[in-house]
Amino acid sequence: MKTEIKTLLESVKDGTMSVDDALLRLKAEPYEDIGFAKVDMHRNVIQGNPEVIYGAGKTTSQIIGIMDAMIRNGQSRILITRLDKASAEEVAKVHPIKYDELSRVAVLGEMPEPNGIGKVVIATGGTSDIPVAEEAAITAEIHGNEVIRLYDVGVAGLHRLLSHKEEIMNASVIVAVAGMEGALASVIGGLADCPVIAVPTSVGYGASFNGLSALLSMLNSCASGVSVVNIDNGFGAGYLAGMINHMEVKK
Amino acid sequence: MKTEIKTLLESVKDGTMSVDDALLRLKAEPYEDIGFAKVDMHRNVIQGNPEVIYGAGKTTSQIIGIMDAMIRNGQSRILITRLDKASAEEVAKVHPIKYDELSRVAVLGEMPEPNGIGKVVIATGGTSDIPVAEEAAITAEIHGNEVIRLYDVGVAGLHRLLSHKEEIMNASVIVAVAGMEGALASVIGGLADCPVIAVPTSVGYGASFNGLSALLSMLNSCASGVSVVNIDNGFGAGYLAGMINHMEVKK
Amino acid sequence: MKTEIKTLLESVKDGTMSVDDALLRLKAEPYEDIGFAKVDMHRNVIQGNPEVIYGAGKTTSQIIGIMDAMIRNGQSRILITRLDKASAEEVAKVHPIKYDELSRVAVLGEMPEPNGIGKVVIATGGTSDIPVAEEAAITAEIHGNEVIRLYDVGVAGLHRLLSHKEEIMNASVIVAVAGMEGALASVIGGLADCPVIAVPTSVGYGASFNGLSALLSMLNSCASGVSVVNIDNGFGAGYLAGMINHMEVKK
Amino acid sequence: MKTEIKTLLESVKDGTMSVDDALLRLKAEPYEDIGFAKVDMHRNVIQGNPEVIYGAGKTTSQIIGIMDAMIRNGQSRILITRLDKASAEEVAKVHPIKYDELSRVAVLGEMPEPNGIGKVVIATGGTSDIPVAEEAAITAEIHGNEVIRLYDVGVAGLHRLLSHKEEIMNASVIVAVAGMEGALASVIGGLADCPVIAVPTSVGYGASFNGLSALLSMLNSCASGVSVVNIDNGFGAGYLAGMINHMEVKK
Amino acid sequence: MKTEIKTLLESVKDGTMSVDDALLRLKAEPYEDIGFAKVDMHRNVIQGNPEVIYGAGKTTSQIIGIMDAMIRNGQSRILITRLDKASAEEVAKVHPIKYDELSRVAVLGEMPEPNGIGKVVIATGGTSDIPVAEEAAITAEIHGNEVIRLYDVGVAGLHRLLSHKEEIMNASVIVAVAGMEGALASVIGGLADCPVIAVPTSVGYGASFNGLSALLSMLNSCASGVSVVNIDNGFGAGYLAGMINHMEVKK
Amino acid sequence: MKTEIKTLLESVKDGTMSVDDALLRLKAEPYEDIGFAKVDMHRNVIQGNPEVIYGAGKTTSQIIGIMDAMIRNGQSRILITRLDKASAEEVAKVHPIKYDELSRVAVLGEMPEPNGIGKVVIATGGTSDIPVAEEAAITAEIHGNEVIRLYDVGVAGLHRLLSHKEEIMNASVIVAVAGMEGALASVIGGLADCPVIAVPTSVGYGASFNGLSALLSMLNSCASGVSVVNIDNGFGAGYLAGMINHMEVKK
Amino acid sequence: MKTEIKTLLESVKDGTMSVDDALLRLKAEPYEDIGFAKVDMHRNVIQGNPEVIYGAGKTTSQIIGIMDAMIRNGQSRILITRLDKASAEEVAKVHPIKYDELSRVAVLGEMPEPNGIGKVVIATGGTSDIPVAEEAAITAEIHGNEVIRLYDVGVAGLHRLLSHKEEIMNASVIVAVAGMEGALASVIGGLADCPVIAVPTSVGYGASFNGLSALLSMLNSCASGVSVVNIDNGFGAGYLAGMINHMEVKK
Amino acid sequence: MKTEIKTLLESVKDGTMSVDDALLRLKAEPYEDIGFAKVDMHRNVIQGNPEVIYGAGKTTSQIIGIMDAMIRNGQSRILITRLDKASAEEVAKVHPIKYDELSRVAVLGEMPEPNGIGKVVIATGGTSDIPVAEEAAITAEIHGNEVIRLYDVGVAGLHRLLSHKEEIMNASVIVAVAGMEGALASVIGGLADCPVIAVPTSVGYGASFNGLSALLSMLNSCASGVSVVNIDNGFGAGYLAGMINHMEVKK
Repeated sequence: MKTEIKTLLESVKDGTMSVDDALLRLKAEPYEDIGFAKVDMHRNVIQGNPEVIYGAGKTTSQIIGIMDAMIRNGQSRILITRLDKASAEEVAKVHPIKYDELSRVAVLGEMPEPNGIGKVVIATGGTSDIPVAEEAAITAEIHGNEVIRLYDVGVAGLHRLLSHKEEIMNASVIVAVAGMEGALASVIGGLADCPVIAVPTSVGYGASFNGLSALLSMLNSCASGVSVVNIDNGFGAGYLAGMINHMEVKK
Repeated sequence: MKTEIKTLLESVKDGTMSVDDALLRLKAEPYEDIGFAKVDMHRNVIQGNPEVIYGAGKTTSQIIGIMDAMIRNGQSRILITRLDKASAEEVAKVHPIKYDELSRVAVLGEMPEPNGIGKVVIATGGTSDIPVAEEAAITAEIHGNEVIRLYDVGVAGLHRLLSHKEEIMNASVIVAVAGMEGALASVIGGLADCPVIAVPTSVGYGASFNGLSALLSMLNSCASGVSVVNIDNGFGAGYLAGMINHMEVKK
Repeated sequence: MKTEIKTLLESVKDGTMSVDDALLRLKAEPYEDIGFAKVDMHRNVIQGNPEVIYGAGKTTSQIIGIMDAMIRNGQSRILITRLDKASAEEVAKVHPIKYDELSRVAVLGEMPEPNGIGKVVIATGGTSDIPVAEEAAITAEIHGNEVIRLYDVGVAGLHRLLSHKEEIMNASVIVAVAGMEGALASVIGGLADCPVIAVPTSVGYGASFNGLSALLSMLNSCASGVSVVNIDNGFGAGYLAGMINHMEVKK
Repeated sequence: MKTEIKTLLESVKDGTMSVDDALLRLKAEPYEDIGFAKVDMHRNVIQGNPEVIYGAGKTTSQIIGIMDAMIRNGQSRILITRLDKASAEEVAKVHPIKYDELSRVAVLGEMPEPNGIGKVVIATGGTSDIPVAEEAAITAEIHGNEVIRLYDVGVAGLHRLLSHKEEIMNASVIVAVAGMEGALASVIGGLADCPVIAVPTSVGYGASFNGLSALLSMLNSCASGVSVVNIDNGFGAGYLAGMINHMEVKK
Repeated sequence: MKTEIKTLLESVKDGTMSVDDALLRLKAEPYEDIGFAKVDMHRNVIQGNPEVIYGAGKTTSQIIGIMDAMIRNGQSRILITRLDKASAEEVAKVHPIKYDELSRVAVLGEMPEPNGIGKVVIATGGTSDIPVAEEAAITAEIHGNEVIRLYDVGVAGLHRLLSHKEEIMNASVIVAVAGMEGALASVIGGLADCPVIAVPTSVGYGASFNGLSALLSMLNSCASGVSVVNIDNGFGAGYLAGMINHMEVKK
Repeated sequence: MKTEIKTLLESVKDGTMSVDDALLRLKAEPYEDIGFAKVDMHRNVIQGNPEVIYGAGKTTSQIIGIMDAMIRNGQSRILITRLDKASAEEVAKVHPIKYDELSRVAVLGEMPEPNGIGKVVIATGGTSDIPVAEEAAITAEIHGNEVIRLYDVGVAGLHRLLSHKEEIMNASVIVAVAGMEGALASVIGGLADCPVIAVPTSVGYGASFNGLSALLSMLNSCASGVSVVNIDNGFGAGYLAGMINHMEVKK
Repeated sequence: MKTEIKTLLESVKDGTMSVDDALLRLKAEPYEDIGFAKVDMHRNVIQGNPEVIYGAGKTTSQIIGIMDAMIRNGQSRILITRLDKASAEEVAKVHPIKYDELSRVAVLGEMPEPNGIGKVVIATGGTSDIPVAEEAAITAEIHGNEVIRLYDVGVAGLHRLLSHKEEIMNASVIVAVAGMEGALASVIGGLADCPVIAVPTSVGYGASFNGLSALLSMLNSCASGVSVVNIDNGFGAGYLAGMINHMEVKK
Repeated sequence: MKTEIKTLLESVKDGTMSVDDALLRLKAEPYEDIGFAKVDMHRNVIQGNPEVIYGAGKTTSQIIGIMDAMIRNGQSRILITRLDKASAEEVAKVHPIKYDELSRVAVLGEMPEPNGIGKVVIATGGTSDIPVAEEAAITAEIHGNEVIRLYDVGVAGLHRLLSHKEEIMNASVIVAVAGMEGALASVIGGLADCPVIAVPTSVGYGASFNGLSALLSMLNSCASGVSVVNIDNGFGAGYLAGMINHMEVKK
């Protein structure tokens, strides 16, 4: 298999194969089967993107095993989400990760230089939404995006949000992170002219029903340009924000 | 019974009995049983408040029957909510009601002069929320309140709401009527210093789940001073707004 | 900034600016950004109201940091809700708070003299609803309200409630706290002539679904003058009760 | 088969077989299979109880077919529930039923003399709950119970309920029918010492969610002796009330 | 107060006052207010019924306090439900209770002789439903009922249930306790001719949604004579069963 | 394309290609794109199975268009489900379908001879479940299965079900169709030793929540060998039953 | 006001003001208040974007009134969604709209030339999802996007989807429209490297719960780059797709 | 009893009684009542099938007691599911079980030789679904089935699934285990021609609502031949798969 990939990469390099064609081919390539997981190979190597491991529900040794397989296949930048502190300490003994306790995100390798269209603004309604926001922020950063953090700008104190009108108007993409009534997404969606990715959080109590309230609120936003990801899914929002912030002309 | 009531009213008039004491006594008074309903008597006669008939699920003849009983007991001002057009036309043949088709509210008798502490502001997120808002507005007006209507000021176009900041800051009570994401209550709650009564409406589609989204959103409002009534319950909000707008010192 | 505020306060003092106008201006004033939170300033200083910190989901050091910022800006009365015992002990080492273990509420500064229109009655259905009721009671008290506690007066033993008919008839505002079937709000709403704020609690089991049963029950109350706050939201109810109990004429 | 049944009935008559033993045997007896339905035979003939047809979702000809089979097997008293008016008129051409339009209940045969332990009280919260209550009332009456109707005694006007304290205290069984917040069951449960059967109704709007609110409320009743049947299930409540009102000593 | 009660009791004893009239009077009697609870007095003393304390959400000292108040007022038989083991051990140091670990029920005083109409059958679908069933059983026994336990007779093994057909046919009342699909109530309801009280349990996983599945199933039972209590509410079922099993002629 | 298919079919016929291999190939074959639908070709031609059109949400002309495409590709047996009567009459003008009004199923072509392992038993709880059951029955029959119908054998009248114990014990597969409490699946599952496919129906009212109750009940069945399809999905059950009844040894 | 706007537009034209700055200013401009609605002005005039009217819940005369106001303010391209056929015919008498019956979308003015980054692919799971997809498609087209329609490519016939792998790989943005199990979004999300906007539809029956099933499924997608809009919200998806397809570098 | 059984078994052996008839008889046989459980006897002895104990909610001594009863009645092969590690260690001291920690399944006795029609394929969407899949796999194996495990083949990486097309096409039955969006069942259902048993898992977070999302998704699968078992019910799926894989001609 190795030779094939090498040939393919050389074709990309010397221009006889486009990146898109190469991607198409690589998507159909085999993966490495390590028993409890099938690790996709090569896809991200070409573009310099990190591979991502969703840490929840995996044992430390499974996580290390997947990292080993990724590194074996040429990947030098890895993002691990939902990694609890104890596991992070175990992993850190084997691979030199940096770990952010608040968002439970670990990163292997250097952060790339931002090279997106513009800036990704990540806003939260309150202080308790910050862990989810940081998961989004680090995800966006490791995918080459400059991130502006606007934390604790919930709509119940509108002046705090309005004093950041300029960052909002000039953003390339905005990630709006909020629990409870989730109104932040609508208000930002009304102010901004760019795509807004709404992340409901499970912050709240009682009739917030673990994020259901914010989720429904965001899905019903009457502001245009707003779409929604799963409750607490900071990674998904950060990833999509980065993708949109790297849109380029396809012929 | 008649004599008792008369005596009681005279005691109130000549000051030997307080209004509160009289109310207390009257609450325990019998009602008129007209078979399908037990019509409370006298309670509102003293204070000039209207009696209220909830029209939904009652036949035209039941409604007329209840009105007859009320009038028989001295009531000259009656509010009928949730009255469909066909029934209203039938009722109008018997009693000289005024009927508002949009809100399906009928009124018998003259509107009183406003005599509240201040003004009741009634705001809606969109055009479709107006029927519920009008139910609230007419209810407040017939209970002696001056109403300011701010319609179609939803948070997705924040400048429309902000251009009415003054009315909001100076309101005595605010009724915030909104469907879909229901964010209006939180934003108004953050701007105002007075009680805000949030009315979720069933306006919307899909994940609005007939008002559930707005309801949960409003219950989770992180703005202080916000409370919530049932979905589409314009009457309840207008009634409570009027009650708050007539607060007076109790010794 | 300081001078501006000072000028403004002096204008209020010497009558060249109304309190409302000052409030309006102050709402647009900057806040102090302490990284993880944006602390609103000055708003409550003028009126003597306490600032409030919602303790849940904040670390002890975040709470202390917010207190520091508040005190730095002239606030001497602070209410902290949802503060667990361990945190409270930490905070108490830095600031001389009084802590109520049952309701998990901490108070910094002296309780003010009651100066409301009348009395706030706080009633509970059962013994287990008392923590939520106390959160409401302390919140109301620190906002200058006299509170009457009627605990364990649930509707299944109607005589217990009826023996307090007088307190209920004479209340300025009533907070009805109940879990399970939440019928207390309706029965009190039927007895009283003042606003009733219903607080569903998560007390119960099985089909109470963590307070959903009481919440729905209260939203569907057929008594007029009843509105609802979030499940277990004693603070919200106490705050709103206090606000209603301080209604005054706005010109 | 006929002879067997006859023998059995004679054994019951001459006392060589107890009613219970006969019932036990009859329950295992064949039914008449009329294609779209399997009609149970004989069971009720002995005790004089009516057979019951649940009319919803059955065509007029199916209903008549089932009646024919019942009559063919000796049954002279039949109760048909959920029968719409058009069908009732069709049925009436074939069998001399009496039809109650409000509750959509039809009865064939004479009402029996009441022979229960005491009286069955059927109470409703409002006027709109009467159709369900009447389904319960007629069901109870055709099973030999004396019924006392207490309609429109909802808890928001407690004095209306309290003025019937005596009927409630003296009832043998109580059926409490209510929509919206469903608090009636708890309050009655607290007043009475007899079994209370709670029937939630779909009366209401918004957060009543078609009876869910009343259902949950009733299931969470903290009054002892309360049990619940399905939303709008007047028949079930009336039947069970009658069963309890005919309890007798089993050796 | 004492003398009044004594007089009343003597009137009952010498026949100048009926038990019902005495009950009616006693229900309106004051309760003992012990701060965190209002303890009803006298009601059960006359009939020999135990007072009941719902232990969940009460501290050990609150429970002991309530017991003290009860005993002070003449009650010698007390039932405590939902009492965890640690609390039970504390209580046992003060009052000589008997504690059943499985059902978490404690009993003070002697069990009375059964004096009901017939026997109460308590059946469970599986082994895991036994704790709820035992709560029902002990509750019924302390109210003077003979209880027959039929455990682990779920419908998936119909022969186990059918081999107890006789107990079921001869029961006075049946309590059907089941989680998961809750079909037991319907099958028993079809076999029996007596009232069936269905108790859904939270036993199960996944789509049982903590008892919701069994609850809905039981509410929808097409067997007549079935009513439902709250999920896991063994006490409610046992109490109601005992009440029905003690029905007697009221004149 | 035609020649390819022909060659392939000949290879199957002369044994140089197995049926499985041919199927595998055909699954990857193109479909006919008729604009609003992409009609799969050939798959069923070989095995004599009918093609199926889900009629709901399709216009009559779309349905006829799809039939035309199917017939054009050699299919002579077509099953159309969820076809309303008006559409059926239109279709019948173009293609000689047989239409069953009760189940809203139309069939084009002759029913095949049954050639399954055994018999498919289709049982319903009540009369109202028959339309769903017939959808299952006709689906099974057109796929070559002998069907035994056991209608109205709900568990509340257990003897009706038990009198068919033999058919149940000897079935190859059983489809259990029931609404309301959905207990039929569990009871049959306990009696039978073959796969039971449970079909919840939307028959019922109130807390049946349009089939949710039966669905949850069936998913929680404690009988082994029971699986569930969507509410009212008679087709899915009939199709799967036929598939299981045609299991054969794969080498 | 006119002069101001004119000046501003001239500043944009002669380059002394950037488009972003102008937008920022215009967002704060007044709107035209036409009683039942507040119509935003000018915003879209500069960029050539259409104004949008959400037709549901508005009367024909309200819609025409809003159109009049928009035209009065210089807008020549208007999109009306959720417009029923009867209203469309009324509107067409006044304004020369084109109306698409399937998607209930009306367009006033010419469609612009596509000028986006790439192509917007709109895929549906089935034929019944086409109306929602067309709402998305027309919305995208009127905002200057080239749209490729891939209809009826649901995952149960994977070859139909896979035969369009190239369009999917080369898309700039993909809108995945599906009801029932909503799996289309995940499968497309796994194949594509561009943002995928998932639109759950209310197509389905039974446990699809009017689109809830597809909504939850799409929110839980484990493919990266997928976000979700409200059930049946074709407009929202088409608008957001167009916005992403017009991303450009912001300095 | 012993003799009866023996006679019956001899009749089976010498061919005077069919296995089916014997089964029928044995099903009606008594069970051993060991107090907290009624253990079915003999049923599985004849066919060599294991008895199954559902370990959740049973104490270790109850489990051992049931095992003892089973062994006493001739059973040598026992499957225990949902057995936590601590209990397993206790049981292992008494009976020589093999315990799989991942799936919490214990097995007593030897695994039988596979003797089914074909192979059972068990596929999972991700790594975290493996515990449920293993419960299914071991259950299928102990019932005599050959199992092929395809783990981590979720639809977001379609090539991983497609590279196993052959195993899927050749399977006798497929068990599709997936959480989150649960799309695996539909995609496999579209590829395969055999029965697919879908097992939703509680893997996921936020709007997965503990498996509800996957459950609804699977119930709404538009692929034919798919049925669903309870969330996380690996045992149920494995058992049913084995049953289908052992279908044989019944005369």
